[in-house]
Amino acid sequence: MRAGPGPEEVRRRNLGSLLQYVHVHGATSRAELTSRLGLNRSTIGALTTELATAGLVSESAPRETGRAGRPSLVVRPESARVYAYALSIEVDRLRAARVGLGGRILDRREAPRPRGMPAPDAVAPLAALVRDLRTAVAGDARYVGTGVAIASRVRHADGTARLAPAPEQVEEPLAEALRAALGGPVRLTVANHADVSALAEHGRGAAAGCDNVLYLHGDVGVSAGIVADGHRAAGRGGEVGHMVVNPYGRECPCGSRGCWETEIGEQALLEHAGRTRETGREAVLGVVEAAMRGDSQAQFAVRQVGQWIGFGVGNLANIFNPEAVVFGGTLRDVYLVAAAQIRSRMNAVALPACCEHVRLRTPELGDDASLIGAAELAFAHLLDDPLVGAAE
Amino acid sequence: MRAGPGPEEVRRRNLGSLLQYVHVHGATSRAELTSRLGLNRSTIGALTTELATAGLVSESAPRETGRAGRPSLVVRPESARVYAYALSIEVDRLRAARVGLGGRILDRREAPRPRGMPAPDAVAPLAALVRDLRTAVAGDARYVGTGVAIASRVRHADGTARLAPAPEQVEEPLAEALRAALGGPVRLTVANHADVSALAEHGRGAAAGCDNVLYLHGDVGVSAGIVADGHRAAGRGGEVGHMVVNPYGRECPCGSRGCWETEIGEQALLEHAGRTRETGREAVLGVVEAAMRGDSQAQFAVRQVGQWIGFGVGNLANIFNPEAVVFGGTLRDVYLVAAAQIRSRMNAVALPACCEHVRLRTPELGDDASLIGAAELAFAHLLDDPLVGAAE
Repeated sequence: MRAGPGPEEVRRRNLGSLLQYVHVHGATSRAELTSRLGLNRSTIGALTTELATAGLVSESAPRETGRAGRPSLVVRPESARVYAYALSIEVDRLRAARVGLGGRILDRREAPRPRGMPAPDAVAPLAALVRDLRTAVAGDARYVGTGVAIASRVRHADGTARLAPAPEQVEEPLAEALRAALGGPVRLTVANHADVSALAEHGRGAAAGCDNVLYLHGDVGVSAGIVADGHRAAGRGGEVGHMVVNPYGRECPCGSRGCWETEIGEQALLEHAGRTRETGREAVLGVVEAAMRGDSQAQFAVRQVGQWIGFGVGNLANIFNPEAVVFGGTLRDVYLVAAAQIRSRMNAVALPACCEHVRLRTPELGDDASLIGAAELAFAHLLDDPLVGAAE
Repeated sequence: MRAGPGPEEVRRRNLGSLLQYVHVHGATSRAELTSRLGLNRSTIGALTTELATAGLVSESAPRETGRAGRPSLVVRPESARVYAYALSIEVDRLRAARVGLGGRILDRREAPRPRGMPAPDAVAPLAALVRDLRTAVAGDARYVGTGVAIASRVRHADGTARLAPAPEQVEEPLAEALRAALGGPVRLTVANHADVSALAEHGRGAAAGCDNVLYLHGDVGVSAGIVADGHRAAGRGGEVGHMVVNPYGRECPCGSRGCWETEIGEQALLEHAGRTRETGREAVLGVVEAAMRGDSQAQFAVRQVGQWIGFGVGNLANIFNPEAVVFGGTLRDVYLVAAAQIRSRMNAVALPACCEHVRLRTPELGDDASLIGAAELAFAHLLDDPLVGAAE
């Protein structure tokens, strides 16, 4: 009784699918695109030509394949010519990068973030980093937008965690202030650090191919990014650091007791290791390295924290049933020396159906996950509708 | 550079939006549809005529409004003529209903589910209930599909909880067996009981208008349905009953210790109340009523369980940040006498930003949530594309 979507609609979707494919997978031959996207050769040829004309992809002959016959042309994203800015406001530092289509970091800058610095105060130094990045951009390169990742914790003067104000109080004002500071027409999106890191690891990292992903980030506290059914489950949620795991545990600055981050955060690890005067990522790495060298107090600290990491992950596995859990930040460092223990405690806590198939992983993108994820926020509209997105 | 979606695509979406609107909100005047859907009067008229021709809606003059001028025609879903079957496999009973477009239960049947009955054994009695329902269907009524809700718990012979096998081992085989038993072309979808109840309360019940909803269902155990960003977050997850809340608590049949359902399930309540020989919903209601009458041991039991309900909900609020939490099944009964305590314990555990705005609710649809939610599974394809869906 009705026709399907019109030919323009179909063409637009196909352009988006093709660009998305090479954005995520990198250089791909026309022959492979034909089979992956389920379209015929002439359609792939026409779409590629259109994207190439718009300056979004380029085509070239492949390297020698050794096979007989005419080789299939290779399509690659124009990483050097189409770019986004990615900004990351972290507990201890500010970062800015220029990220090319395809998720390649082309250039980067970094500045320290003093303790307790409120997010609005990060605007001026971030804008300075971006101005510095701009000086190196070629004249024919095309800017598509800016993505910003912001940590949900701030460090107190004494080194402990402080929860940043609620996202709706921070994100929009920050976006406005950054737009003003950066000048010109700026398409800018702000999201949580763990959220965008989850997105990046899901798209092209340790959780590629998994539809349900839990990304856990440790710094002064613990936060989570969640991918559910293939989509970023954004929102103010993900305050897993304040999941109470130990009703008889320590008081937490949030007012509750026994929150997960009081058991697995940076401070807990350093206390167990007898290093209460140290703080930060370097101090955490110091404990992990001492444990590897056989230092018994450091090993004790890692064991204690590993127990509670496994416990919490088991709980979260029962709730979310993820296919992959990725440990980022300081949790990555601890995971590397406590993997077996974390897995075994998780197995004890979680239902077999919920944990049997969970892959525990460290980020393949490392600390770049937040930058690459922030850039995804900026690329999203281009991938959704390549020719309109590019024309703006 | 490109045209938007074609006119056919637009028309199809608008037909779906209009049908969805009256399906959820019931009888609506053309004038209100014009303003709610943001379309002009002549478009609403044409869409309504098309849906009426397809037998999906009807139009009639409104009752006397008292206002001057020609009254706007009222559009209502053809609830009596367009229907789905909804089946619900619960811990203690099997139910079947015929549900009209608009979510109205037109007819229903029920049978007990003996203890420990595996899901496949429910196929024959459910099919018998459906055959019985069929005898009362008018000749011109149109069947659109069947939805099945299945509980994630089974009751042991001793009355305690047993986890049903993993959904992927149950749902598809069950769907196939039901299709075979029901005969003819059956469009049938199976989903978790708490999942579809969440969907129903989100659509037309206690959580209408909330984009992030947690539906908690208590029976012999505890399970959850989650709506995130307005969408059903389906999946094997939602095993919140096995979130460990008390690492020093009782052993759970799942192999872990201190799972939430060991603290708030039916058995915990009955034990605290000194009624260890009773089981089932009636026994839970007995304790709740005794507490209301002032029985001190029953009040103690409700307080104990209420504490742990509030604790777990606070934890889940930190993770999901829902706008509404709906307590169904036995949790509804306990909530009615322990609401203040649950709220205050939740507030103590959860971050202010995550619990300040949470509405705690009991289901407006009561136990019918699972039937109405199961029917939504069947209506979904019709609402997505009314004319194609209706033609099949």
